[in-house]
Amino acid sequence: MATLQDIGVSAGINILSAFVFFIIFAVLRLQPFNDRVYFSKWYLKGLRSSPARGGAFAQRFVNLDFRSYMKFLNWMPEALKMPEPELIDHAGLDSVVYLRIYWLGLKIFTPIAVLAWAVLVPVNWTNNTLEMAKQLRNVTSSDIDKLSVSNIPEYSMRFWTHIVMAYAFTIWTCYVLMKEYETIANMRLQFVASEARRPDQFTVLVRNVPPDADESVSELVEHFFLVNHPDHYLTHQVVCNANKLADLVKKKKKLQNWLDYYQLKYARNNSQRIMVKLGFLGLWGQKVDAIEHYIAEIDKISKEISKEREEVVNDPKAIMPAAFVSFKTRWAAAVCAQTQQTRNPTQWLTEWAPEPRDVFWSNLAIPYVSLTVRRLIMHVAFFFLTFFFIVPIAFVQSLATIEGIVKAAPFLKFIVDDKFMKSVIQGFLPGIALKLFLAFLPSILMIMSKFEGFTSISSLERRAAFRYYIFNLVNVFLASVIAGAAFEQLNSFLNQSANQIPKTIGVAIPMKATFFITYIMVDGWAGVAGEILMLKPLIMFHLKNAFLVKTDKDREEAMDPGSIGFNTGEPRIQLYFLLGLVYAPVTPMLLPFILVFFALAYIVYRHQIINVYNQEYESAAAFWPDVHGRVIAALVISQLLLMGLLGTKHAALAAPFLIALPVLTIGFHHFCKGRYEPAFIRYPLQEAMMKDTLETAREPNLNLKGYLQNAYVHPVFKGDEDDYDIDDKLGKFEDEAIIVPTKRQSRRNTPAPSIISGDDSPSLPFSGKLV
Amino acid sequence: MATLQDIGVSAGINILSAFVFFIIFAVLRLQPFNDRVYFSKWYLKGLRSSPARGGAFAQRFVNLDFRSYMKFLNWMPEALKMPEPELIDHAGLDSVVYLRIYWLGLKIFTPIAVLAWAVLVPVNWTNNTLEMAKQLRNVTSSDIDKLSVSNIPEYSMRFWTHIVMAYAFTIWTCYVLMKEYETIANMRLQFVASEARRPDQFTVLVRNVPPDADESVSELVEHFFLVNHPDHYLTHQVVCNANKLADLVKKKKKLQNWLDYYQLKYARNNSQRIMVKLGFLGLWGQKVDAIEHYIAEIDKISKEISKEREEVVNDPKAIMPAAFVSFKTRWAAAVCAQTQQTRNPTQWLTEWAPEPRDVFWSNLAIPYVSLTVRRLIMHVAFFFLTFFFIVPIAFVQSLATIEGIVKAAPFLKFIVDDKFMKSVIQGFLPGIALKLFLAFLPSILMIMSKFEGFTSISSLERRAAFRYYIFNLVNVFLASVIAGAAFEQLNSFLNQSANQIPKTIGVAIPMKATFFITYIMVDGWAGVAGEILMLKPLIMFHLKNAFLVKTDKDREEAMDPGSIGFNTGEPRIQLYFLLGLVYAPVTPMLLPFILVFFALAYIVYRHQIINVYNQEYESAAAFWPDVHGRVIAALVISQLLLMGLLGTKHAALAAPFLIALPVLTIGFHHFCKGRYEPAFIRYPLQEAMMKDTLETAREPNLNLKGYLQNAYVHPVFKGDEDDYDIDDKLGKFEDEAIIVPTKRQSRRNTPAPSIISGDDSPSLPFSGKLV
Repeated sequence: MATLQDIGVSAGINILSAFVFFIIFAVLRLQPFNDRVYFSKWYLKGLRSSPARGGAFAQRFVNLDFRSYMKFLNWMPEALKMPEPELIDHAGLDSVVYLRIYWLGLKIFTPIAVLAWAVLVPVNWTNNTLEMAKQLRNVTSSDIDKLSVSNIPEYSMRFWTHIVMAYAFTIWTCYVLMKEYETIANMRLQFVASEARRPDQFTVLVRNVPPDADESVSELVEHFFLVNHPDHYLTHQVVCNANKLADLVKKKKKLQNWLDYYQLKYARNNSQRIMVKLGFLGLWGQKVDAIEHYIAEIDKISKEISKEREEVVNDPKAIMPAAFVSFKTRWAAAVCAQTQQTRNPTQWLTEWAPEPRDVFWSNLAIPYVSLTVRRLIMHVAFFFLTFFFIVPIAFVQSLATIEGIVKAAPFLKFIVDDKFMKSVIQGFLPGIALKLFLAFLPSILMIMSKFEGFTSISSLERRAAFRYYIFNLVNVFLASVIAGAAFEQLNSFLNQSANQIPKTIGVAIPMKATFFITYIMVDGWAGVAGEILMLKPLIMFHLKNAFLVKTDKDREEAMDPGSIGFNTGEPRIQLYFLLGLVYAPVTPMLLPFILVFFALAYIVYRHQIINVYNQEYESAAAFWPDVHGRVIAALVISQLLLMGLLGTKHAALAAPFLIALPVLTIGFHHFCKGRYEPAFIRYPLQEAMMKDTLETAREPNLNLKGYLQNAYVHPVFKGDEDDYDIDDKLGKFEDEAIIVPTKRQSRRNTPAPSIISGDDSPSLPFSGKLV
Repeated sequence: MATLQDIGVSAGINILSAFVFFIIFAVLRLQPFNDRVYFSKWYLKGLRSSPARGGAFAQRFVNLDFRSYMKFLNWMPEALKMPEPELIDHAGLDSVVYLRIYWLGLKIFTPIAVLAWAVLVPVNWTNNTLEMAKQLRNVTSSDIDKLSVSNIPEYSMRFWTHIVMAYAFTIWTCYVLMKEYETIANMRLQFVASEARRPDQFTVLVRNVPPDADESVSELVEHFFLVNHPDHYLTHQVVCNANKLADLVKKKKKLQNWLDYYQLKYARNNSQRIMVKLGFLGLWGQKVDAIEHYIAEIDKISKEISKEREEVVNDPKAIMPAAFVSFKTRWAAAVCAQTQQTRNPTQWLTEWAPEPRDVFWSNLAIPYVSLTVRRLIMHVAFFFLTFFFIVPIAFVQSLATIEGIVKAAPFLKFIVDDKFMKSVIQGFLPGIALKLFLAFLPSILMIMSKFEGFTSISSLERRAAFRYYIFNLVNVFLASVIAGAAFEQLNSFLNQSANQIPKTIGVAIPMKATFFITYIMVDGWAGVAGEILMLKPLIMFHLKNAFLVKTDKDREEAMDPGSIGFNTGEPRIQLYFLLGLVYAPVTPMLLPFILVFFALAYIVYRHQIINVYNQEYESAAAFWPDVHGRVIAALVISQLLLMGLLGTKHAALAAPFLIALPVLTIGFHHFCKGRYEPAFIRYPLQEAMMKDTLETAREPNLNLKGYLQNAYVHPVFKGDEDDYDIDDKLGKFEDEAIIVPTKRQSRRNTPAPSIISGDDSPSLPFSGKLV
């Protein structure tokens, strides 16, 4: 049992490590040679260029102005300075709303913490149950437990305080949630209304176009919409299966990198030609001249690419039964996206087209039946992943003994002979399988979402986030509270009665408070502080800089600012909401630690969003209903656990008063769902009509067809626009309102194409017109 | 334990009583004076008029042609003769699809019964577990149990047969369900496509029109739709709050009935004026001349009505914030119904307008927040109704002793003195509260649905049916299987583990087979046969005929053919699906009894639908998704219970193979939901466009505005069209395709206005134009 002192020591260590991270960060970010890592967002926006070329050579790489090191926490007020509207303009609505999740945490938990400390702590403290237990039965307990509900004797009337507090906490949380939902719905509508013209406002994604013997997909689509939306249809683009082409392009990119590497190496050391072996990992095989070899390879693959491109463009079999259909007005697009087109609801499926850079191309052609089956398979797979992931890992662990490894690779025998090394590895090996699995889990979940067939990256991430949340809930929260692997929990839950389960967990809750406090400090304080160092991108940037970079453009590409990472970040925050709500009425001691987390994370991520992260897409806060729903879920879980806990405390008369809480909370959720969720799913006709009317008045001669014609072209066909992109990044085309028939698709402030959608071939001199 | 012989006797009794009902029916229906009761549908359609006036006096009332009595089962083939398309024309799609539920039962259970008897019965029979138990432990068992799964020893490999059969049954049921869903979706679309022009095809119900300081609701609606649907808006009708007016009209109707009664009495016996007392129930108070009194009263209330009508029409406060908005095309109406209009999703709510006669007028003005609260309250109320209804009834029962009654009404003392009477009442009283409650339950559920705020009678009935189903599941099925009141079950379920619950119920299942066989025979055989007698309408008709009827029109009104009663009928059928699916792998013995029920009910209800019932509305089979969902639910329940049962039989190796079944079944349900349900909720634009195009081609000069202008007028304002209705019934306006600006709303083949919607004042000489 940890005492207050232990916690204090632990807090000291974590605060210290957070400070160390901040100091390292302060030192690193002031060095000009790290500038592109710590201010990548500004580079991408074209508002910052490489540090001054002039001056001493050293000054170009190391900052020698020692005064700047003194103010090493300066970035914090700096990060808070930028007002919200400017931030939306700078980093998009998604980022701003993401920050508001932390802000929401502060808004919910600050009054709760104050109230809990003012009311619950004295009520808990002024008992002596635990002391008596200590004296009578030699039960040990810590000071923290004295502050928690454990210190109140059974049958006590004091439990009424906890019930009243539970009501107060619920009402406050719901109130803040509702206000926040309203604010964000308004922000979203405002954002959508004030946005510049964008192709996805006019465009609908049509899937499952039925096969037709007489007409091509393109003709069929055109005829269908000319008939059924006669006054509104404008143009369309069919989707073609360019997955193989995208692979080839990727391969070429890799070869190009190697070529660059060897050319640079050769340029630095002119004395000799560089030879490489062609075999496995360059370890054996025929020796050839590296530069010549790669030039030949690139030549070969370039030919393959152009052949494949020809095929994709001309082969009708490469056309997938999907199309992006554009309309003359936003009103008509809103109508088409929200209605059913034909008798058969599995054909001519219409939905809002995602932003061009948000499209996940390879999923566009999955037929309806296959979608249902895939979804079912993934549900089952996720169930097993959550509850039984430990089984294969334990199996791998049993295999991964040192003896086993030595048997496979005898040359490692010297390790086994060394006793110290052996014991180190022995202690390290069993954990490594689990650590690896957990590190790859977000990627596994993303792959599962992709398999499920979502058509936009934003929806992929939302689904992955949901699954990660469930996984955390079961394997972090529950597994920590009631020790035991998930499938053991599952088994015991199946064998326990419905009202026994909250009791089992509820009883364990107060005992785990110290554990979770430590967890919050390690994961939430030091972990968040560590995030700001950007270690991985920093190392990668310098490696690339050393070996691959030849031009400024290459240096641009070497930056990997990353993005918020909704699929991993949001579930992590939700764990803190859960902990805060569960512990608020039980062990208020925990709340200040959560507050520190939310405040720190808010500042750190605000800084990152302003200076570093580059968003991959703009979904206009489409994820908020998920965030809201999960906080509600945490609230209900906390209420059930409190009920269970009080049940075991024989506060039997009191517990029934808590039953109303989950019912009311769920009722509240349904109200919010009906009241605010449509703003995140549908596009009101009035808004569309208003924007249309304004536009017609302002630009009566707009060539919309030209604007939309090539907006949705597969990224591999947009190679030659790379230069425009760069210009764009540099802010050349400031006025986006002037419409020229362009094939550009990215928006000014967030121009980098998404990584996942496969757009990583910006150097191909070809632009395909598919229709 | 019932033996096969007991079952046989019981079957005999029930078959006999069914035959007696049929014979009584055969006799009654051949009597001309019952003609209007047993052939009311034909009268309503105007295809049958009162029996020949000529001939002997006696022949007008009694059928003396004895030959006709010989063929007393003649109506059965008669009922099956009418082909489905004709039946749709005759009685509407709802009725035909309702019949298909019984047909679905036959299709599902006939092959299952054959398979179960061919495979499971021999497998079960050729064991001697029960006989051995009899010899060893003196456990009694019946022949029926020998046919059931109870006869198989624990750990037996024979359970594999049951698992394979469970798979076969599931696959077959799902297959039939899918085919049926497809057929009915097609029938619905076909029906909607082939229908004549109807106001609801062009009309959308708009609710929650926001208040506006400057404009009236009518102006606001017009402006809003002129702006946001500029090319499509045609006209609209606001809804006014005529609930008080409807009450007054109802009251007048009642007074009119009394006047008719006394006038008729006076006419028959001219000798003396009839005097009535004005006090409570006519028992005391001032004596007045009855006819004069009622004439004066009617005069008074008529004045009140016209005053109230003036007020409703002219008072802006009586206008509710809702309107029926009509469009120029079906396409535009489909668009408006399926889209969101404004930012705030709780304002300007649009949905398909129900048929005019299907509208539930008094719910049209409920605001959104209130709807959420009402729904939550009703959910909670229904929970308590289902699980705790027995508590107040037990309380009433404890009060309703004979002593208590005698204390309240001393003049009944003679009953208590009579020993025989006392014992009869003693045995009868406790049950009466429960019986009364169960008799009123459907009405209670309907009131709950009304409170919840649904705007059409069809949706009211669907919700009530859902609740009735749940109530039956808990209080008939579960309560019979594991004896005990619902709240005791709830308590034991809360205290049992999740995998113990199916075991508890599963074990009890085979033991209750004989009970359910008897239940099926009483409720399903004799009960259905009794339905055909139409006892209540028969008695009511003759009473009214004797006391109120003066003209043919009155006689018309005295008929009360009733309707299918989806809210009570469908849940009852679902109980049979549940029983069939649960018992199929356990006690196949039960299946033939269910087959007989489905076959008998199919014939009886087909006859009733052809000859008697008059549908209140036409929802074009909108209820099918509910029916489908409940059969799926029954399937999943049956699978879980089989799992539980096999679990207790130590077929532990086998039970896990059943886990996949519910998962697959639920996956199948999701597939069907996505594939077919939209046909029941949305109206595809292609269909709308096709109908519009056809219409424009056929009738280019159609005055649609005139047609729609008064389609949605509150029924109390449509008094003077009564005569047209009658004409209509008689088939005068055969050709509905000729469109004249008319205020008529009912359709030719189903002209009676719905009872619930309050349209019971067809004699008011007024037609209000509200807009």
